[in-house]
Amino acid sequence: MGVDAARCWRCLQAIRRETPLIQNITNSVSMDMVANGLLALGASPAMVHAEEEIPDFTPRADALVVNIGTLTPSRVASMTKAAGLMQELQKPWVLDPVGVGGTALRNAAAEELLRIGPNVVRANASEVRALAGAAGGHAKGVDSVHTSEQAIDAAESLARRTGAVIAVTGGIDYVTDGERSLRVANGHPMMTRVSALGCTASAVVAAFLTVERDPLAAAAAALAVYGLAAEYAAALADGPGSLRWRLLDELDRLNDVRLKDGIRIS
Amino acid sequence: MGVDAARCWRCLQAIRRETPLIQNITNSVSMDMVANGLLALGASPAMVHAEEEIPDFTPRADALVVNIGTLTPSRVASMTKAAGLMQELQKPWVLDPVGVGGTALRNAAAEELLRIGPNVVRANASEVRALAGAAGGHAKGVDSVHTSEQAIDAAESLARRTGAVIAVTGGIDYVTDGERSLRVANGHPMMTRVSALGCTASAVVAAFLTVERDPLAAAAAALAVYGLAAEYAAALADGPGSLRWRLLDELDRLNDVRLKDGIRIS
Amino acid sequence: MGVDAARCWRCLQAIRRETPLIQNITNSVSMDMVANGLLALGASPAMVHAEEEIPDFTPRADALVVNIGTLTPSRVASMTKAAGLMQELQKPWVLDPVGVGGTALRNAAAEELLRIGPNVVRANASEVRALAGAAGGHAKGVDSVHTSEQAIDAAESLARRTGAVIAVTGGIDYVTDGERSLRVANGHPMMTRVSALGCTASAVVAAFLTVERDPLAAAAAALAVYGLAAEYAAALADGPGSLRWRLLDELDRLNDVRLKDGIRIS
Repeated sequence: MGVDAARCWRCLQAIRRETPLIQNITNSVSMDMVANGLLALGASPAMVHAEEEIPDFTPRADALVVNIGTLTPSRVASMTKAAGLMQELQKPWVLDPVGVGGTALRNAAAEELLRIGPNVVRANASEVRALAGAAGGHAKGVDSVHTSEQAIDAAESLARRTGAVIAVTGGIDYVTDGERSLRVANGHPMMTRVSALGCTASAVVAAFLTVERDPLAAAAAALAVYGLAAEYAAALADGPGSLRWRLLDELDRLNDVRLKDGIRIS
Repeated sequence: MGVDAARCWRCLQAIRRETPLIQNITNSVSMDMVANGLLALGASPAMVHAEEEIPDFTPRADALVVNIGTLTPSRVASMTKAAGLMQELQKPWVLDPVGVGGTALRNAAAEELLRIGPNVVRANASEVRALAGAAGGHAKGVDSVHTSEQAIDAAESLARRTGAVIAVTGGIDYVTDGERSLRVANGHPMMTRVSALGCTASAVVAAFLTVERDPLAAAAAALAVYGLAAEYAAALADGPGSLRWRLLDELDRLNDVRLKDGIRIS
Repeated sequence: MGVDAARCWRCLQAIRRETPLIQNITNSVSMDMVANGLLALGASPAMVHAEEEIPDFTPRADALVVNIGTLTPSRVASMTKAAGLMQELQKPWVLDPVGVGGTALRNAAAEELLRIGPNVVRANASEVRALAGAAGGHAKGVDSVHTSEQAIDAAESLARRTGAVIAVTGGIDYVTDGERSLRVANGHPMMTRVSALGCTASAVVAAFLTVERDPLAAAAAALAVYGLAAEYAAALADGPGSLRWRLLDELDRLNDVRLKDGIRIS
């Protein structure tokens, strides 16, 4: 499929040039990092989640992220309305099913959102297994207890059932549409020690969907570029506190040379 | 009007000495940065937004900021109650109309709040144009698509209509009460790449209103001091991630020498 | 009681090994810092606060923190339900009564939660005095206007009345169960200039309660370890902005040598 460094670089340049407007209906923990991650990437974030504002605002967004962390029943109504509108307008949206498998409220919300038809689902291995109905029990809170390898079968079957591209992030990221699969070997283990980096990955995927029509390629390119920035950040970081802000600096500093040397999609 | 470095320094010293209590009814994205910005400045922030708590809490606040980002209908009730109370008590309050022009909910909330009579409205150019009913379409999400120069006429007419000082921030900041105007040339372009820096500017204006009776001078001094800290931060920053925390460090380190060399109000 | 560096180190090692799941029903301002503080410590944070999710989620948590900042009436229902469940399951939970004494809503919520029986109450001096019904007026917003020394009597009487360990943080931290008392001399004055560091301290106490059965020892060890990380961070920090992320890096870097040299519990 040729998702190489050059293609990633064309996507990143397009984002920086077009500054796509990304609407985020996301959890309260990650809003700050998601907004700053999108700004550092070159996109324009907007956190608009009141149901009353969806009809006015969502049609102007270039992509949408729906993230079910810190969920409430009233938030679910906004999410389904916004997702339905994007579907109708044939604009891309990403589902981040934080903590699915852990509570009935999240399971019901995730199932309802899946039925609306996200272009990409970005999740950790335990969440993908929960969505696919795999045996093997719960995640630990919102952190995965499975490796991404352990979710490959679940991801492929979920992709075939839903029509969505499934992006499982972890030590290695796996992206599949049920037929084609890509393996992204960027990223750094220290990322699991910083809050909201998964949520931010989902928002980065949404930004890439606005400039790359093939959702499989968009998701893989997004995760590779984001993971590569994290690698550069981790090389300079003294711990999770510095990793977080350095990731933003490195997203801003990515260029064709850095991508050429570092992108690892296969 | 003589809003020079010495006057800015007297304001900043007074804030550090008196640690005014600033109530913020603000959006979920910016709470963290606003709280840390006020603490770094020398003020005491409090994020109290439940309608039930307003009668107990608001009378003890020295100033209030009302910010309509991540708005919900129930939050509007708290905002109007708190703003009305400050008006009644003749204490200063600032309106930050995030994303006004973008949705009917925000437009209605902003109009209702404007009628209560904020001392200062701090906004970007697209928001000021939307509030003033200027032609020329929407902002892009919450980011301005206009330069601050393109909002000068709108700001002056809005100031005359509402009696509020209008502070338009951008490359150059313009502050006007409809008759007098000031131009603040502090700040740095990288600020647009960090989330919540506009919201934090509004909170800094509120803190200055507690120590400087002329709202035009207070707003100009606040934006100059804040922008100057950002200039010092940007000189040391490697990107938007480091700009954010360095801005807090530099707010804390401002002194008379730094202000004398850097304040640019005309 | 022997809460020395070796005991603190055993607790910290146990947390890093077991990564206890800490549920936080906390305010919107501090969520980001609390989550990152727990991750840097070695625990697994989850911010689950919808009342509907409590029955599914809370039984899997190893400890709970209830923090009444940015309170709303609906949030109080989640808090009492989750706290009651932890009590029933005989698992530890911590109450952080942010801003109590300031509004009737917070006073009522704090009283109701106290009756459920937290294992530890972590608060500043003004909050402890307000909870104990001490004379001497309100805090200033959410910041203390009293030294921790001025809350010792109130803390002891509150501990005897409620059966909870009371941990008063400030220049010196005092921890008491009404009979035994410990004095923790770690920490740094610059911590008051960073938002959410008190909330994060409460979450760290909750993590220590999962690995140390004596709540007095757990609270003292937690505050000493956290305060020591802040001392290392402050030695390198240029201001409040850098203190915040350096605290996370230093929590991650603590080891037996650093604890042996620095823990000051008496």
